[in-house]
Amino acid sequence: MSAPDIQTEAAAFHAVDLIRTKRDGGELSDAQIDWLITAYTADHVADEQMAALAMAVLFRGLNGRELNRWTQAMINTGERLDFSDVARPKVDKHSTGGVGDKITLPLAPLVAACGVAVPQVSGRGLGHTGGTLDKLESIPGWRASLTYEEMRRQLSDVGAIICAAGPGLVPADMKLYALRDVTGTVESIPLIASSIMSKKLATICDALVLDVKVGSGAFMKTPESAGELARTMVDLGRAEGVITVALLTDMSVPLGLTAGNALEVAESIDVLAGGGPADVVELTVALAREMVAAVGRDDRDPADLLASGAAMDTWRSMIKAQGGDPDADLPVAQETDVITADCDGILQSLDALAVGEAAWRLGAGRARKEHAVQAGAGAVLHAKPGMCVRAGEPLITLHSDTPERFARARETLAGAYTIGADEPAPRPLILDRVT
Amino acid sequence: MSAPDIQTEAAAFHAVDLIRTKRDGGELSDAQIDWLITAYTADHVADEQMAALAMAVLFRGLNGRELNRWTQAMINTGERLDFSDVARPKVDKHSTGGVGDKITLPLAPLVAACGVAVPQVSGRGLGHTGGTLDKLESIPGWRASLTYEEMRRQLSDVGAIICAAGPGLVPADMKLYALRDVTGTVESIPLIASSIMSKKLATICDALVLDVKVGSGAFMKTPESAGELARTMVDLGRAEGVITVALLTDMSVPLGLTAGNALEVAESIDVLAGGGPADVVELTVALAREMVAAVGRDDRDPADLLASGAAMDTWRSMIKAQGGDPDADLPVAQETDVITADCDGILQSLDALAVGEAAWRLGAGRARKEHAVQAGAGAVLHAKPGMCVRAGEPLITLHSDTPERFARARETLAGAYTIGADEPAPRPLILDRVT
Repeated sequence: MSAPDIQTEAAAFHAVDLIRTKRDGGELSDAQIDWLITAYTADHVADEQMAALAMAVLFRGLNGRELNRWTQAMINTGERLDFSDVARPKVDKHSTGGVGDKITLPLAPLVAACGVAVPQVSGRGLGHTGGTLDKLESIPGWRASLTYEEMRRQLSDVGAIICAAGPGLVPADMKLYALRDVTGTVESIPLIASSIMSKKLATICDALVLDVKVGSGAFMKTPESAGELARTMVDLGRAEGVITVALLTDMSVPLGLTAGNALEVAESIDVLAGGGPADVVELTVALAREMVAAVGRDDRDPADLLASGAAMDTWRSMIKAQGGDPDADLPVAQETDVITADCDGILQSLDALAVGEAAWRLGAGRARKEHAVQAGAGAVLHAKPGMCVRAGEPLITLHSDTPERFARARETLAGAYTIGADEPAPRPLILDRVT
Repeated sequence: MSAPDIQTEAAAFHAVDLIRTKRDGGELSDAQIDWLITAYTADHVADEQMAALAMAVLFRGLNGRELNRWTQAMINTGERLDFSDVARPKVDKHSTGGVGDKITLPLAPLVAACGVAVPQVSGRGLGHTGGTLDKLESIPGWRASLTYEEMRRQLSDVGAIICAAGPGLVPADMKLYALRDVTGTVESIPLIASSIMSKKLATICDALVLDVKVGSGAFMKTPESAGELARTMVDLGRAEGVITVALLTDMSVPLGLTAGNALEVAESIDVLAGGGPADVVELTVALAREMVAAVGRDDRDPADLLASGAAMDTWRSMIKAQGGDPDADLPVAQETDVITADCDGILQSLDALAVGEAAWRLGAGRARKEHAVQAGAGAVLHAKPGMCVRAGEPLITLHSDTPERFARARETLAGAYTIGADEPAPRPLILDRVT
């Protein structure tokens, strides 16, 4: 019990009073919120007090004013990235995470090729959704950490960076996220929204485009909850003076045909080369259009810049600027194992969560943040729902350096797909747009 | 963030799963509850996790099965006091605490005088309600700590003990109560009931009589909440096979005419001598009748044993057995300050909470458990509601060794009473009986 010792008499407020107020359905004042977030980050409010308050917020919510202030207070605990001396308009993007979601890889250079600066501060993967940095680190030589000066120069010269957050990015969120993870308080729309938006708004941009995933492979399982999260985040961005748009997109099946780090880099390069799976191309172009339109750079269609190879040129420059070799062979897993279809028919469904978990079990993801990932591990899909399959032909190929993992991955995928006679109903990729 | 380190893979359950279950309105299994309480007491579940769970319980409650198991699991973390070799029937009593509530002092020897053993394990005061041990410690020589053998012998020879809990009494509650205090999770009926009842049921008795206070000076402010707490505790006692009865009693005005340690001992001795304020006598006799009736020893009326001096004899033996001198002069505060009535009339009301806070500010209580109390400090009331007062005559006398405290105590009492022309409506002392 550390609380009674660190709660000094000189403190402006007592954490227990704030907990009681929120518990009983009251509102926290701006001054209380500022004090709470600052004091918690400085270890002057105990973890057990913040946990109780987070649970009270989960039950009672935060109103618009409280949430704006909460998010602002979180941003104020850290350093902000200000690229105002970079001439181009600056647009950021965030995805709430899904299986096979490699969109940032082709998207950032594509939008940069349209004359917009894309300062993309990304994270690593935890659990069944992969991390953008883990994917890019499968490229020989590529490094995720950039100094501020390196970021600024690359943003001017190339137009796009994809890099790791420095330790100074929203320290309140680093602490609060770890706390929520162990206290059953992750699933609160205001706490999710403030966590995401504090990190995004810490990089000062003109616009922000959000890709809010919906479905089995996403954190938000229903269009209703995803819509509420999207609206909450859009409101937060606009309150901060940032043009903010969200797309709700389907995550009931994986995006593209690959889940795994080097596998997804290869697929992204296919897209930049003018090929790649239709859904990855569709979502990349849709998000790119939102990003350029938000800052009035929609005089040229991103689809044309993808077709012209301009996006590929920017990709190569971006990878090189961060020490990577865009021509190097990508790592390949030592072993593969093929799951075949057991009957002829049309693939009806393919559960995104199961594919994500299988890739994770194969070594593509990590269970704890200190774990390493296998660059070559993952799953390659040979069919998506609506495509014909034949008995005995490959359905999914598993890749891993540790073949003893194949059995668990197969178990995870058993029952994750269905094969039938009828054409399944077409499923739109982009479900809604929230402004 | 200690949780991820101490939550070992070998644990039977994960705390976060239990938090999520309760948060979402589900039930915890017996095995989950046993694991949770044991693991928390052993520091294998982090404070932040128990805080989040306590807040979820505050919102979602515990059903009867969960609460019985929770209480049983708490009892099982400590040692139980078993006096089965003491021949008399054993009856315990608990009050939820109020201002001027010295009832345990005359009650325990009175019930013992009726042939019943009263093993009264008591606590110290914190905040505006006094503690039974603090009161008795104002008697020169009296000591609160007894060995188990001393308890057993005194219970056989005298019939009553009032003593401090040993460190082995429900360690789960010691930890959980301190946590709830700083996390805004005190006000949960199941958590209050399990805290009280785990400590009471740890002493193995045939019956238990509960005095649940209602009103401004009590923890429960309304008859509804007090009734719910009473029913919950009675159900818990009966589930454990203990005859359990609760009285709901008024705590909107102080009990008796004194609030403060030695002041309340003196008033208790008045009651044992056949005098004392009517309300203290009424409640003492009512609770004594419940205690003796519960074990079939109601062949003699406690009122007669009070009048005969038998209860006083037992009091003297009980005090002596614990090293106290029943004939010694009680400590007196060094200074007094008199609040006088500012007009003639009938005292309409006298707020219990204000009197309790004033006594606390004068030195009778403590703000932190490591603080000492003043034996002589407190407040003496010269009138109770319904009595006539005259302008300029004493209404309340403040007692303290530290006269600089008088001003704050006077502030606390300003507005705490009203004087008017009409007779106030009579207020029953005993509001309800729950079996």
